[in-house]
Amino acid sequence: MGDHTRERLLVIGGDAAGMSAASQARRRRGPDELEIVVLERGRFTSYSACGIPYYVGGVVGDAEELIARTPAEFRERRIDVRTRTEAVEIDTRAGRVRVRDVDGGAERWEGYDQLMIATGAAPARPRLPGADADGVHGVQTLDDGIAIRRLVEERGPRRAVVVGGGYIGLEMAEALVTRGIEVSLVDGAEQPMRTLDPDMGRLVADAMRGIGVGLHLGERVEGFDTEKGAVTAVRTSARTLPADLVILGLGVKPDSGLARRAGIETGPTGGIVTDRRMRTRAERVWAAGDCVETRHLVSGAPVAIALGTHANKQGRVAGINLGGGYATFPGVVGTAISKICHVEVARTGLNEAEAAAAGFATLSAVVESTTRAGYHPGATTMKTKLVVERRSGRLLGGQIVGEEGAAKRVDGLAIALWNRMTVEEMTGLDLGYAPPFSPVWDPVLIAARKAAERVESDMRDNPL
Amino acid sequence: MGDHTRERLLVIGGDAAGMSAASQARRRRGPDELEIVVLERGRFTSYSACGIPYYVGGVVGDAEELIARTPAEFRERRIDVRTRTEAVEIDTRAGRVRVRDVDGGAERWEGYDQLMIATGAAPARPRLPGADADGVHGVQTLDDGIAIRRLVEERGPRRAVVVGGGYIGLEMAEALVTRGIEVSLVDGAEQPMRTLDPDMGRLVADAMRGIGVGLHLGERVEGFDTEKGAVTAVRTSARTLPADLVILGLGVKPDSGLARRAGIETGPTGGIVTDRRMRTRAERVWAAGDCVETRHLVSGAPVAIALGTHANKQGRVAGINLGGGYATFPGVVGTAISKICHVEVARTGLNEAEAAAAGFATLSAVVESTTRAGYHPGATTMKTKLVVERRSGRLLGGQIVGEEGAAKRVDGLAIALWNRMTVEEMTGLDLGYAPPFSPVWDPVLIAARKAAERVESDMRDNPL
Repeated sequence: MGDHTRERLLVIGGDAAGMSAASQARRRRGPDELEIVVLERGRFTSYSACGIPYYVGGVVGDAEELIARTPAEFRERRIDVRTRTEAVEIDTRAGRVRVRDVDGGAERWEGYDQLMIATGAAPARPRLPGADADGVHGVQTLDDGIAIRRLVEERGPRRAVVVGGGYIGLEMAEALVTRGIEVSLVDGAEQPMRTLDPDMGRLVADAMRGIGVGLHLGERVEGFDTEKGAVTAVRTSARTLPADLVILGLGVKPDSGLARRAGIETGPTGGIVTDRRMRTRAERVWAAGDCVETRHLVSGAPVAIALGTHANKQGRVAGINLGGGYATFPGVVGTAISKICHVEVARTGLNEAEAAAAGFATLSAVVESTTRAGYHPGATTMKTKLVVERRSGRLLGGQIVGEEGAAKRVDGLAIALWNRMTVEEMTGLDLGYAPPFSPVWDPVLIAARKAAERVESDMRDNPL
Repeated sequence: MGDHTRERLLVIGGDAAGMSAASQARRRRGPDELEIVVLERGRFTSYSACGIPYYVGGVVGDAEELIARTPAEFRERRIDVRTRTEAVEIDTRAGRVRVRDVDGGAERWEGYDQLMIATGAAPARPRLPGADADGVHGVQTLDDGIAIRRLVEERGPRRAVVVGGGYIGLEMAEALVTRGIEVSLVDGAEQPMRTLDPDMGRLVADAMRGIGVGLHLGERVEGFDTEKGAVTAVRTSARTLPADLVILGLGVKPDSGLARRAGIETGPTGGIVTDRRMRTRAERVWAAGDCVETRHLVSGAPVAIALGTHANKQGRVAGINLGGGYATFPGVVGTAISKICHVEVARTGLNEAEAAAAGFATLSAVVESTTRAGYHPGATTMKTKLVVERRSGRLLGGQIVGEEGAAKRVDGLAIALWNRMTVEEMTGLDLGYAPPFSPVWDPVLIAARKAAERVESDMRDNPL
């Protein structure tokens, strides 16, 4: 059960959350006080999964550029990273984890004083005939990215089908278009990016068609045709799309099975339940990253959002607490941002459907404006949509679709949401104005004005 | 005294604040209910003074592009704009304004039911020998901009001296460098952009030297040499700089003399005092824009900051209230942003000196990071500095110096200031992350983390 003169922290999972926790704990407690062992199933630590489409597209030259820190670098900081090592069982009563050597298969128990679970997310894979065929790839791990790029460069596929129109699906579609591949995208919904309202999602669909992606929306994937074990086509509810490469971008769900089997509580999203300090309901067990659920600060509901930025923050919070400090992770407001060729897309908070589901009566405002002063070179057009609570005028969410310089304005909306601002109050915000950066009324302010006017006229038309 | 069947709003000044107020009032009250007369001394209405350097530099082709709306366009909306018409006296007891025809010189009285003062700011002009010589130009009005550009294009000046190292001075220096002119900049202070702390201002100085501007800091201007009425050199406390063009960028102060002479209260900054609805202390008299003082929401002190964005907001608020609605302008947090060639600069809140003057005990954190994921093409380096209150960790101010994609992040800091956030709370902010937009920890979050660590270690080292 290890060394009893010092505490032992066992970390399951060596990516963003696990390594952030390990690093923070190490900063606060030296190796004489705290031993830190990280169990990582794969070969890599701390890499940018969000960078995979850029690696596949060739924008990023080398897979190593996506790796923030290698196992060797962590070892220098006295964090004992063991790659190709999988945790297969947690015994919370005895405080130990059963560990399997991925290559050799040998198993043993490792004891812990504190356990950090950072097992990440697992991709949704369709249970469909041919889904395991050669040429069908998920986009979850760096190994997936390396395999796809190798296939693209060595086999020169002519036609690719991307299944799933979320962020990763659209980014992969762009990457493959960049590679000169004919790309189709299939999604069961009537629009890509379902986290946007239909009116804003339509702008993204138009942009995808504009770069030459064939969109097949409202079509279910029913199976994959194969020949000698390799994929040759994707069969949808409406057609057969020939393909020598298929990318599955169907989203992910918390990889919480290991925790659940150990009796550690998971929530309605399937994610591990933690408090704001990232403690699970089991003693001496912490969790962070894609495997946990967190609170949506606008709806108040539990959500599981797999994003490296949350994983890093939660890991940091867990690590500070493990190191004897005090930190909390209060939740998220649901911010996401993406760039597909020249199109920038962002959203935060609740869209109309989400707001209705959360019980809010809403109003919306959509404005078109320019990213810079209209007369300044490089000014582009952008659309900003705000979803607002009726009567109170509280901001509930925002969506942006535009070009260069548009989408990062979502940060302002996210901070306004965080602070429960009303749109009327937002009209006064002191945002940076100069012609190369903004029109005299920043698009965020123009949208807030329009929304405030709608709240006021609704109040006038429908007095209490 | 005009038509008594309807109210009459008289607006003095036809730029951002005055025309915003007129437009908002008109939206809410039709011409049958409210007559709106605007008195404008110059020839133009509603133009972007901030765009003048870009017009002089040739980035903006035509001066008309800087005009948001012409007098004729306002007249179509039944706003009676009278250009070349100057208000010379306000009689608040009788509710009337003495008006002079700038070209003809004729005077008459115009009555009002409501008066809106939007007289803007007046440039500080040094009382020095030669300051009125040919070739010495301020940069206040669109006419100034037109005159400078004409001089640049027609006379082909070889050497220019810019007096004053604030935003407008630096932007004009860049514009003239762009035109192939040899540019020197003189400022009495030891750094340009005194609204930045010296460590951040130094980065701006380096950038200015990098584009070939000769900086003469810590030198007072003592006079101008002339020949046949035209400027030939600028004499400073240390040297004589030959010049065939001199730009005065010495800042501005509220142009509140007209109001003051009418007994309308002005404050310590020289600006007209208003409440949050933009009412002056005189009955039926409102004011907005560069001629008023407002509250700094961090220091609590009155400030006069001449910026089109504040003028527009205050004018809108006044106009809503004049139109029978309810709106307030609570104050500013002191945000400013600028781009000089490839260098982006922004600041908000209080810098170290300002925070000390306001009675805050502070800590600071400076971080260097990239604008995008380090591996993403187009990532540039930026420095972010946060000034934080000791103990509480409340954010007091922020400064950014970087390149493409850096400075507009000041908006996030400005909104955090507005909401009195602590840096510890800011570390959790859900900002947009994707490789083309940000590293996995946005620079704002990295800076907040570093600042939070400094607050914590200060607390540990200096227990209460």
